[in-house]
Amino acid sequence: EAAPVEVEHDSPWSQEPKRHALLKPTSERPFNAEPPIAMLSEKFLTPNEYFYVRNHLPVPTLQPEDYELELEVEAGEGQKKLKLSFAEIKALPKHSVTAAIMCGGNRRSEMTKVKPVKGLSWGAGAVGNAKWSGARLCDVLRQLGVQPHEQLHVIFEGADLDPTSHPYGASIPLSKALDPRGDVLLAYEMNDQPLSRDHGFPIRVIVPGTVGARNVKWLTRIIVADHESDSHWQQNDYKGFSPSTDWDTVDFSKSLAIQSMPVTSAICSPMPEEHVKVDGDGFITARGYAWSGGGRRIVRVDLTSDGGKTWHVAELEQEDLPDGRHYGWSLWTARLPISAEQRQTQSVELWAKAVDSAYNVQPEAFEHIWNLRGVLANAYHKVKVKLV
Amino acid sequence: EAAPVEVEHDSPWSQEPKRHALLKPTSERPFNAEPPIAMLSEKFLTPNEYFYVRNHLPVPTLQPEDYELELEVEAGEGQKKLKLSFAEIKALPKHSVTAAIMCGGNRRSEMTKVKPVKGLSWGAGAVGNAKWSGARLCDVLRQLGVQPHEQLHVIFEGADLDPTSHPYGASIPLSKALDPRGDVLLAYEMNDQPLSRDHGFPIRVIVPGTVGARNVKWLTRIIVADHESDSHWQQNDYKGFSPSTDWDTVDFSKSLAIQSMPVTSAICSPMPEEHVKVDGDGFITARGYAWSGGGRRIVRVDLTSDGGKTWHVAELEQEDLPDGRHYGWSLWTARLPISAEQRQTQSVELWAKAVDSAYNVQPEAFEHIWNLRGVLANAYHKVKVKLV
Ligand SMILES: [Mo]
Ligand SMILES: [Mo]
Repeated sequence: EAAPVEVEHDSPWSQEPKRHALLKPTSERPFNAEPPIAMLSEKFLTPNEYFYVRNHLPVPTLQPEDYELELEVEAGEGQKKLKLSFAEIKALPKHSVTAAIMCGGNRRSEMTKVKPVKGLSWGAGAVGNAKWSGARLCDVLRQLGVQPHEQLHVIFEGADLDPTSHPYGASIPLSKALDPRGDVLLAYEMNDQPLSRDHGFPIRVIVPGTVGARNVKWLTRIIVADHESDSHWQQNDYKGFSPSTDWDTVDFSKSLAIQSMPVTSAICSPMPEEHVKVDGDGFITARGYAWSGGGRRIVRVDLTSDGGKTWHVAELEQEDLPDGRHYGWSLWTARLPISAEQRQTQSVELWAKAVDSAYNVQPEAFEHIWNLRGVLANAYHKVKVKLV
Repeated sequence: EAAPVEVEHDSPWSQEPKRHALLKPTSERPFNAEPPIAMLSEKFLTPNEYFYVRNHLPVPTLQPEDYELELEVEAGEGQKKLKLSFAEIKALPKHSVTAAIMCGGNRRSEMTKVKPVKGLSWGAGAVGNAKWSGARLCDVLRQLGVQPHEQLHVIFEGADLDPTSHPYGASIPLSKALDPRGDVLLAYEMNDQPLSRDHGFPIRVIVPGTVGARNVKWLTRIIVADHESDSHWQQNDYKGFSPSTDWDTVDFSKSLAIQSMPVTSAICSPMPEEHVKVDGDGFITARGYAWSGGGRRIVRVDLTSDGGKTWHVAELEQEDLPDGRHYGWSLWTARLPISAEQRQTQSVELWAKAVDSAYNVQPEAFEHIWNLRGVLANAYHKVKVKLV
């Protein structure tokens, strides 16, 4: 019912929105694209038009005046059903949270160099940081009388439909949805603007600290259930495996659906093979982002320009928010010394690694975190640049 | 007042309890000791008498009939003061939680091989897993009228006193203390037995998922405050630093006090240099533990017997508890193939690495996580054994 009539009669791709020319597609249909990563470290809040786009299906066309969010409490306590119009959601108390959203496949293109993986070949730009505003899901669930329960899940469905008319779907634990510190939003604004069509207009659920795939766009249905979403993307995708698991031996039912993401970082500037001028003191400047899931704050980013013999602690730009609720990313800047030998060979490799508030660190290399879907690619980011 | 009169007149060490002969001391005064790690993987709940002991000061002698817990609400809302007797704490609703407690310096002896660090030379045995029972701190704080507040802390003081009569102290964020899923206990039982003197008799605060140092023993005072504990152990110890930070450059005020611990694992059996028989199928069996802080469940433990060319997923023994509230450790078992060449050289090196529910992984080596205090030593555990 949410899909527009035109799509039924025409190609499902005929209603795709216009995109910014700087977004580099990793696939056209469905549309997936990331910005040049040098742009990411320039602004703490990623401009909406450069924010990476991850669509699994054609973009639906929803009208706010027809929009309806269905809520169902299938399991546990609470009122069984509720429908909320767009106006009713906007009439609820408005909350804002700064949260980075990251694709489970961010940096897959680096992992695939170890051994090929299946999936879109993302660089380090499948992430963005925005201020999201909307109603709190915990307020809506409490109004319904939903009570904490460790075995329940909250399923989200989008208006984006697969060729058999099944919606995109995902789920999160009820404990995350009900936690006021979880900051889950029924968001209608991104950086103080209405959501664009590519980002879920009119309503997207924002699940801070959780892999992008659970932040369902074009949200039309919420179900409190005793099981996870049975969607392809919850059950047979976005899960991690041992490096020795291959497509002959993989059993998706045995692995945990990714929720909270591990600590990661990337060098946004200089970019690989960029020509960089060494300053009068013999230093170059690097910038980038760092982030960890689960509301864990980045507490340190270390950079090296000599293969890890000496590490330099970066300056951080981040919000002053407590651990467990620090959902935004951190931007970092570091000045790195260049040796006489590096000046002579006109080449240096920079490495970045971040530490989060649980003192988790990134793994050094992709070899031992390799997985057949190429997700969770959070090894040290290593960038070779030319010196001039 | 909590310290017994004898200590004032005599050596503060004259009242130390008797310890089990199998505990290997890393220091005698204060007493610090760990069990042989092969014993750790034998039982899911570590027997009390083998549980590692980490004392910072002499063990105080407290009598339950004189015991008094002082509570003070210095900052935020709530009744200003309350005193609870041991009988009053026991009269509160009793809760139990399985939680591993791990010393911040566990496995320091491995990190120190890269470059010397300051601290007790712990092996991989400064951890144990127990069922703790007591009153919930969140219930007590709610009774006092304490309200959630992101900027407040809960300070704990013990009856163990330094030579200037200052107590051992530590603090945690109020958000952890108030969260029912945080499972913080005023514990009086360990594996269904009254706490022993070495483990905090009569009351120890159990802060599941949090470094051992915050699980204050011989608890006598709780303060809700607008600052962390000003104790040495909160301010100038138990913090992480970059590998390039040395004692000339270190600034403890700039680093985060360790709370939630990062993912780790250890091979308990076989032990280093142990002689191991290869079975008829050409395999050996390894066992160990894995754990992550913050209530994150262990989702996988990978073992290799060929330097990471092939990884074998271990069988896990763990409680069936939800993520975010999975505070106990996981024991694991794996059968590992031995190559013809390894049989010939009669030698093999085993590596273990664990993955937690946020898909954080262990770093491969100690070199790039080295820190001057030798804490957070969670690199892959590597054990060389002899084959027979
Ligand atoms: Mo994604
Ligand atoms: Mo410790």
